[in-house]
Amino acid sequence: MNTYTNRQWIYSKRPENVVDERHYSLQTTSLSTTELKENQVVLKSKYFSLDPYMRIQQSALETWERPHPLDTVQGGAVVGQIQDIHPSCREFEVGDWVLSYTGWQEYAIADVSGLRKLNRDEVPLTTALGILGMPARVAYFGLQDVGQPKPGETVVVSGASGAVGQIVTQIAKIKGCHVIGIAGSDEKTKYLKETLQLDGVINYKKFTTQKEIHLELKRLAPQGVDIYYDNVGGYITDAVIDSINTYARIIICGQISQYSDGLDTPNLGPRFLHKMLYKRAKIQGVLARDYNNRMPELLEEMTPWVQQGLLHYKETIVNGFENLPKALNMLFYGKNTGKLIVEV
Amino acid sequence: MNTYTNRQWIYSKRPENVVDERHYSLQTTSLSTTELKENQVVLKSKYFSLDPYMRIQQSALETWERPHPLDTVQGGAVVGQIQDIHPSCREFEVGDWVLSYTGWQEYAIADVSGLRKLNRDEVPLTTALGILGMPARVAYFGLQDVGQPKPGETVVVSGASGAVGQIVTQIAKIKGCHVIGIAGSDEKTKYLKETLQLDGVINYKKFTTQKEIHLELKRLAPQGVDIYYDNVGGYITDAVIDSINTYARIIICGQISQYSDGLDTPNLGPRFLHKMLYKRAKIQGVLARDYNNRMPELLEEMTPWVQQGLLHYKETIVNGFENLPKALNMLFYGKNTGKLIVEV
Repeated sequence: MNTYTNRQWIYSKRPENVVDERHYSLQTTSLSTTELKENQVVLKSKYFSLDPYMRIQQSALETWERPHPLDTVQGGAVVGQIQDIHPSCREFEVGDWVLSYTGWQEYAIADVSGLRKLNRDEVPLTTALGILGMPARVAYFGLQDVGQPKPGETVVVSGASGAVGQIVTQIAKIKGCHVIGIAGSDEKTKYLKETLQLDGVINYKKFTTQKEIHLELKRLAPQGVDIYYDNVGGYITDAVIDSINTYARIIICGQISQYSDGLDTPNLGPRFLHKMLYKRAKIQGVLARDYNNRMPELLEEMTPWVQQGLLHYKETIVNGFENLPKALNMLFYGKNTGKLIVEV
Repeated sequence: MNTYTNRQWIYSKRPENVVDERHYSLQTTSLSTTELKENQVVLKSKYFSLDPYMRIQQSALETWERPHPLDTVQGGAVVGQIQDIHPSCREFEVGDWVLSYTGWQEYAIADVSGLRKLNRDEVPLTTALGILGMPARVAYFGLQDVGQPKPGETVVVSGASGAVGQIVTQIAKIKGCHVIGIAGSDEKTKYLKETLQLDGVINYKKFTTQKEIHLELKRLAPQGVDIYYDNVGGYITDAVIDSINTYARIIICGQISQYSDGLDTPNLGPRFLHKMLYKRAKIQGVLARDYNNRMPELLEEMTPWVQQGLLHYKETIVNGFENLPKALNMLFYGKNTGKLIVEV
């Protein structure tokens, strides 16, 4: 019998604006292998995924599922290692690395049905949270299924250096598109331009109005925008919508500019639906979960891309379990480039 | 040789708000059959179609085509009768009734390639402008291709008693949907309820805020909205978007609330794209012209519906060529029920 001291971050207070340490409390419990039931394992967490959707679940609104319950461990994807295993489990063994959804705790009991086995000889373990994980799923299928990019089309990506954006931009390049990335610092746009080889980049912080961003976009893409993959929303999105072509496809993957204060009481922005009309454009919201069952298809195509270095990716790694709430907050100030992860 | 005195309404000034007589001038010219070239006819106009899209074309913005040129005859669909015919025309003869796009003039020279022959023994001539014309096209294909209604789903239609709305609501009923119509007077909602047999109606003028309309919608459709067919935009649309279900489809056919002052300088409204995200909803703009080549399919299915009285329709007929600009203005104050037509 093993017993572990288990620290957990409890989501304890609903945020009204940005989420940070004030909305969490740290709790220490213990976890014993005597609790293991059939087909269960004890995991030791190693890498925690930090994702903007966490803030949507903290809204009091009915979102894509019930709001995250208060006074429970903050949910989230984790890469961990199996420490103990119920004798009934055949497919896994102690020492295996797995992806699980066991949230912000140092140890967790997990049903094996919810685990994906990882092979760290094939690709780094953190890729299961980013370039070959949930962000990849919504990037790969959102761009291709909804966007249907054709060679020569112009694709604009907001939040282009984020976990999802960096993947979308590169798949769009692979598909032969003219790709413009929007991000919030010179460091980020340098990464987009020099490493990801995008055709154009915009540091939106250098512009103060929708109109100025629109004009810069017009300079970079005088032929107009065929596909807009939006992670950000707000006035950046307004500026891109002003540039869309007939039959444009707009993929709504995120609206991070709205998550801190615009969920419960929406911000105001210019009405634009009349443009959807005369441009016969389409807007569609996508969530990674809708493509869960197509993950094998993605891994088959994208794993070699990662192994061969055809896909670049950045990760921002924060150390220390105690920093999880602080790290989540970083997302809403754009402090990460690429996938944001906490390592313990 | 015949010569006709021909009055024409010239679009002479770009409106900044609502369009009315100030933006037109009446011109009298003459038209002689000596002008007829190969495959051309002289038409005498009988019924003029008044449509909200005319106002979009008058915006200075790049819309779905170039803005309507100033100092030209106002474009538009017309039902007319052939008066004279070039001997080269084989498919038509004098006296034939046709649908043409010759605009606001009493007589017109038209190429036969742009004419659709009408049979007034089959259905009334005015149906070619409404229930079996352009509004039907965008209603029939917009609802079915984009909306894909399934029996038991809830369909909300704004501008429900307008030329397009009255068709959409009835097709949705035929498809087995729970249909709620929004319109702007008790007379209109009575028509929707009693004649079109809708499941629920809302006179939006009885409510003053988005929230109140949302609550009324919630009362009428506690199960939420699966399809929203929007002819109106503005705060009515905000209220419906607050009620959408997962995988909702929103068809943007019109945004008439925005045409008078919101095209050039957009009105402000609440940002809602984050809802598209967590509801995985789709918004798509549709124009009748995109379905022009599928008109035979529509006529084959819908003509019997009209002949058998399965589809009801209203028309608002204004008499007198001189009233065309005034009649166009009526659209933007909701003074028509069903298709708005000027008869001469």
